[in-house]
Amino acid sequence: MTLRQDADRILRSALQAAMPDTAVKKALASADFGPGKLILISAGKAAWQMASAAVTELGDRIDGGVVVTKYGHSNGPLGRLDIYEAGHPVPDENSYRATQAAIDAVTGLTEEDTVLFLLSGGGSALFEKPLIPPEDLSRLTKELLACGAEITEMNTVRKRFSAVKGGKFASLCAPAQVQAVVLSDIIGDPLDMIASGPAYPDSSTAGQAWEVVRKYHLTLTPEMERLLSVETPKRLDNVRTQITGSVRQLCAAAETVCRELGYRPTVLTASLSCTARDAGVMLSNIAQYYRDSPESLAFIAGGETVVHLTGHGKGGRNQEIALAAAPGIAGIPGAAVFSLGSDGTDGPTDAAGGYVDSATAETLKGQGIDIFTVLQDNDAYHALEKCGGLLKTGPTGTNVNDISVLLLKK
Amino acid sequence: MTLRQDADRILRSALQAAMPDTAVKKALASADFGPGKLILISAGKAAWQMASAAVTELGDRIDGGVVVTKYGHSNGPLGRLDIYEAGHPVPDENSYRATQAAIDAVTGLTEEDTVLFLLSGGGSALFEKPLIPPEDLSRLTKELLACGAEITEMNTVRKRFSAVKGGKFASLCAPAQVQAVVLSDIIGDPLDMIASGPAYPDSSTAGQAWEVVRKYHLTLTPEMERLLSVETPKRLDNVRTQITGSVRQLCAAAETVCRELGYRPTVLTASLSCTARDAGVMLSNIAQYYRDSPESLAFIAGGETVVHLTGHGKGGRNQEIALAAAPGIAGIPGAAVFSLGSDGTDGPTDAAGGYVDSATAETLKGQGIDIFTVLQDNDAYHALEKCGGLLKTGPTGTNVNDISVLLLKK
Repeated sequence: MTLRQDADRILRSALQAAMPDTAVKKALASADFGPGKLILISAGKAAWQMASAAVTELGDRIDGGVVVTKYGHSNGPLGRLDIYEAGHPVPDENSYRATQAAIDAVTGLTEEDTVLFLLSGGGSALFEKPLIPPEDLSRLTKELLACGAEITEMNTVRKRFSAVKGGKFASLCAPAQVQAVVLSDIIGDPLDMIASGPAYPDSSTAGQAWEVVRKYHLTLTPEMERLLSVETPKRLDNVRTQITGSVRQLCAAAETVCRELGYRPTVLTASLSCTARDAGVMLSNIAQYYRDSPESLAFIAGGETVVHLTGHGKGGRNQEIALAAAPGIAGIPGAAVFSLGSDGTDGPTDAAGGYVDSATAETLKGQGIDIFTVLQDNDAYHALEKCGGLLKTGPTGTNVNDISVLLLKK
Repeated sequence: MTLRQDADRILRSALQAAMPDTAVKKALASADFGPGKLILISAGKAAWQMASAAVTELGDRIDGGVVVTKYGHSNGPLGRLDIYEAGHPVPDENSYRATQAAIDAVTGLTEEDTVLFLLSGGGSALFEKPLIPPEDLSRLTKELLACGAEITEMNTVRKRFSAVKGGKFASLCAPAQVQAVVLSDIIGDPLDMIASGPAYPDSSTAGQAWEVVRKYHLTLTPEMERLLSVETPKRLDNVRTQITGSVRQLCAAAETVCRELGYRPTVLTASLSCTARDAGVMLSNIAQYYRDSPESLAFIAGGETVVHLTGHGKGGRNQEIALAAAPGIAGIPGAAVFSLGSDGTDGPTDAAGGYVDSATAETLKGQGIDIFTVLQDNDAYHALEKCGGLLKTGPTGTNVNDISVLLLKK
């Protein structure tokens, strides 16, 4: 197998492990349901795929439930489940209707019953029942988006005006047991932040919510002011949560296949957050240290880097990581660096990422291309295109951040 | 032991291993001298210290030789050695005089004799005998410095006008054996570049030298044009070289003491070359991945990062590495990041580097200090000063780049 074939195989396996259906099947293998009813509630952008995988696994064991996903993201009927499409990123009437249906489905259950709760990114808007007039919530959401509030700040405030967020949905399910399966799209997997944590004890406080309101000078009605000060559940005894399909699993899957291919793998991080260029330089610095290693090595980093725009070229953060590593691994036998966006897109391009090896810098030099200048122009796409270094996957059906890998093959 | 005490011990041990005298003693332990005469030649900024260590080890076994170092860098007589101080970074009459004395000392030796050749940074200027009128060489050197040529470019050109550079000194020693001990101050330890490689086969070509001349429009006399095309030795059979005291040894020593202290150490690189801020962020990203590790871990990176000046504060690259890691390790129990310039200085400050732990970000926040703003101002010094995070060593007597360490203590 060539280095490039190793890279393709590593990426394919890593992506497969992060697919919603793979993730759900894996989670259900260790799930433990009570003897009573089994209700399925699935919310988020991957809700339909996750529910579909559960129906395939459990079939008639599911007594009913609700699926709510983004418009255009469902793909036909699923067993006895009611399927809704709704507004994202701004919740709409269908969000509220679907969520009310979910609340109805879990109301009146006993402790012998189980709620299988499948959650993916986008759930904050899609799974929502406001405790205030919907127009007040809608106005607040728009205000928060407009003032550039961070997602964590938005969630801290919004969950207080919600009947389901901040652990409140799990409270509504009680005394039934809740088996939550979470497809994480936030680095570090903060369970109270993913879809605003409907089934997770809330770590944010009323005080923090008030801080956000003051920071952005948000407009509140008297009823909103009252609700802002009501504390959310800080403990939930009826919930068991499995995180799946996160960037950590992406890294773990890459680690496994690297080992199968004869590399000794090291995962460096699952929360890479530096600049793309420096991530590439750093990976090449590691290659320099281990260039004479007698065994094949792999270093894996998951996360989401940032790009500083200094030019007007075409590219994405994964393409920058790869290209920035090229000069540092030039001439190191068996060295390759590649990086991929797990959703199959990288910046405003048709590529998912980039691949370079020890010959790339020389190849580009031979074509009169100076890598430093290309990086200054943020134009990695065109340089990688010229040396066969673009990785193209098309839409992958999942979205769990990026993965970057350094290989040193003996 | 506290984390801070571990850090101090790791840094002390690493520095000790990189001291010129320790390095020379270690190298001599495995040196193998012929039955004939032993001539010592020591050149560079650490020449006196290296020669002193050799005299301590070998005493009367040394039959004579020459030491040439920078003005103010010698510290008294050493056995039978002739000691010179000379010009740096521009060579002067004393450089030429000392180098001629060295050539005389190694002339007429037999293959039973040995030249112990101790080389440290700065040797390019200090160990020099021009093949052209000194004023021509001096003018060329000034021209190269003025036009911003890189050190490798300077050396590629200058060695062709030298009687000793580019492997030529070792040729002059033949048929005597040359035992070279090199204290490396260039990342990656390129032996033909350190002090322009007087005892190492030259990898640069006449063609490359001509490229530099054209790139910077350098002025050459006809004699210089002739010499530029003469090839340097590409093979030297009478030389055995040991690299010592390099940043790689700094990392290896840190690795050893980390293991003694109960950490499982991983050296990431000995050629870190990304921005200081991103190096710090990256170390904190690694901490996030391993925060729940059951064993104590250490990650070590040597090299020389760069600082982008965006403000007018006070700091250095090592202080920036440490401070940039603070937010990412906040609240991770037993986590610390520290970084140190091995010469005891870091930027234009009286500190050698910085130390942060899982409480640093909170401590600074409590004092109203925003780390992101501080980094934008390049003002790490004042922030670290306020939380006891400055590392001060004073001049250490060595200079082998920087070392950065992440500790995760259980």
